[in-house]
Amino acid sequence: MDAVTFELKKTCEKTKARLGKLRTPHGEIETPVFMPVGTQATVKAIKPEELKEMGAYILLSNTYHLFLRPGHQLIKEAGGLHKFMNWDRAILTDSGGFQVFSLGDLRKITEEGVDFRSHIDGSKKFISPEIAIEIQNALGSDIMMAFDECPPYPADRGYVKDSLERTTRWAARCKEAHKTIEKQSIFGIVQGGMYRDLRYESACRITQLDFPGYALGGLSVGEPREIMYEVLDYSADFLPADKPRYLMGVGSPDYLFEGVERGIDMFDCVLPTRIARNGTAMTSKGKVVIKNAVHEKDFDPLDDECGCYTCRNYSRAYLRHLFKANEILSSMLLSHHNLYFLLSLMKKVREAIDKDRFIEFKKAFYDKYGEM
Amino acid sequence: MDAVTFELKKTCEKTKARLGKLRTPHGEIETPVFMPVGTQATVKAIKPEELKEMGAYILLSNTYHLFLRPGHQLIKEAGGLHKFMNWDRAILTDSGGFQVFSLGDLRKITEEGVDFRSHIDGSKKFISPEIAIEIQNALGSDIMMAFDECPPYPADRGYVKDSLERTTRWAARCKEAHKTIEKQSIFGIVQGGMYRDLRYESACRITQLDFPGYALGGLSVGEPREIMYEVLDYSADFLPADKPRYLMGVGSPDYLFEGVERGIDMFDCVLPTRIARNGTAMTSKGKVVIKNAVHEKDFDPLDDECGCYTCRNYSRAYLRHLFKANEILSSMLLSHHNLYFLLSLMKKVREAIDKDRFIEFKKAFYDKYGEM
Repeated sequence: MDAVTFELKKTCEKTKARLGKLRTPHGEIETPVFMPVGTQATVKAIKPEELKEMGAYILLSNTYHLFLRPGHQLIKEAGGLHKFMNWDRAILTDSGGFQVFSLGDLRKITEEGVDFRSHIDGSKKFISPEIAIEIQNALGSDIMMAFDECPPYPADRGYVKDSLERTTRWAARCKEAHKTIEKQSIFGIVQGGMYRDLRYESACRITQLDFPGYALGGLSVGEPREIMYEVLDYSADFLPADKPRYLMGVGSPDYLFEGVERGIDMFDCVLPTRIARNGTAMTSKGKVVIKNAVHEKDFDPLDDECGCYTCRNYSRAYLRHLFKANEILSSMLLSHHNLYFLLSLMKKVREAIDKDRFIEFKKAFYDKYGEM
Repeated sequence: MDAVTFELKKTCEKTKARLGKLRTPHGEIETPVFMPVGTQATVKAIKPEELKEMGAYILLSNTYHLFLRPGHQLIKEAGGLHKFMNWDRAILTDSGGFQVFSLGDLRKITEEGVDFRSHIDGSKKFISPEIAIEIQNALGSDIMMAFDECPPYPADRGYVKDSLERTTRWAARCKEAHKTIEKQSIFGIVQGGMYRDLRYESACRITQLDFPGYALGGLSVGEPREIMYEVLDYSADFLPADKPRYLMGVGSPDYLFEGVERGIDMFDCVLPTRIARNGTAMTSKGKVVIKNAVHEKDFDPLDDECGCYTCRNYSRAYLRHLFKANEILSSMLLSHHNLYFLLSLMKKVREAIDKDRFIEFKKAFYDKYGEM
């Protein structure tokens, strides 16, 4: 039996929004869920205990980065990624595909896999579907992702078609290479660019391989948001209802709402921690740019509706001071707040779906949040 | 009555090491004590709750830095430094003198005070004894320091003599300027360079002003350690036994031991957090430079005798990875460990004094720690 299973608990009557539960070897996760990102085996500026306190039950970590540094064999020797980074709840690892393809001129794709140069030291590296699985086996993540090719936007139809053929062959090779399905599960990735028929074809062929979960890849890669929403509109319908659906690399509040409304169960994004380090907070009344002079003598918390550690203990004036003084605590406190904000938002989204109030909740949030 | 009082509980029979208790408006502190430094209203990369957990009862913060940014009036409006930075235990603020004098060509000393240029934006600033007290009153620290002149090392006798005269006049002006002694106490600062007779003269004249505590200034400013120890040998004897003695800017383990042995009760230093950010840990077996290749596959904790959060949860291999990957968590975890290490060390020092085993404890520590 697959290590990771999904239970669909409810589907909204008015939208495609769903409530579900993922069961993994490292605990259960209520969906829809936002997964904080710990690229290099740490969620930047945050301790694991904080993530637990704020209700995170699953993290994402990046295969590409860990492969290059410190190396998957080292993490295996350390007892796996969970132990290495002191996180005993669930972990999803991506396949490294997205990062490798983002290297542009530094990589060369063949049927066998991808030759590329490390962004750290320029050394030659190679990842194939089999190696992506070997790395993720060594890391010991609960959910592994198939090694796919993610076409850029825009990309012509011929390229996208060829690419999805290869992604399909690679998905089969990933499945073949993974021997311990009772310990770790692989999710397949649907590609097809912004072409409806190719999305359909990719979904058919990937789901024929029968993975315990599916991701929609190749979205949020630079296309206008209307196009992404349109692709989401039909793409979710091409996937089986009883398997979890994961929209990769998406984490702004509007994308989360629009994704949930279209039947997506899982999301991840570096956005909350990245903008935190740049001094921006997400609040119930919209974004707060903490360095702005208006906050100089503002002794109120970032968000008076927020119950997080940062909002309970610190004023905007203090946070502004820390940011301007280049203090590490600025990144720590703002990252904490932003992650808490998104995790709490998703909790409220689940409650709203449960009470058949998702559309109303979304509208109220949008009205108050303003521009995304 | 003075806001801060001192109770001398015990003096070692074989050395001048003492046990005491400082009582402040924000709690009691067992001495000898090491005070973590929160220069800009934060101990770098550490949350206040962590400091409490590791047994910190008093912090130091820097008047010069807070005067320039965010400004003492803002902190006063925020309800004082304790509230601003979320720390309800004791705070000692320095006077800004040391930082101002360190500016070299950027400052000009007159009898009235010191004109200088901000290191942040080059703007013209002025601090006098009265302004140093005004700033510290606004910050609301439990212990304020008198505004002194700290001569460099080496400095000729004539300069040091003139300087200590001015420091004495300024100390009297600080005392005169401070009206709320029941809320905050001022400690006097003894100068006199490395000249025994001038140290004696300064001590006599500063103690005549009758402060509730005294610091030894102008040490650890570049002189050889033997000279510092020699000055400490006689300087402590020039001070009243029933008042706390504070050696400013000192925090390596050897300096702490040597200071305690010579009758010092209070210490502060940025060392533990600064070296932590540079990847160096203090352990019971000496310094560990975490980036070194020898730690690459070392899955043991930094210090197997340490009970801190970092040592309980993370391996050297993980810490090395974080440091090499430039992750903020590296600074967080190493700073936590180093502060815990020094605070625990001082706790053991107090226990050793209590059990008349200080000399033995010091020897055992030195034997194991190796080169400082």
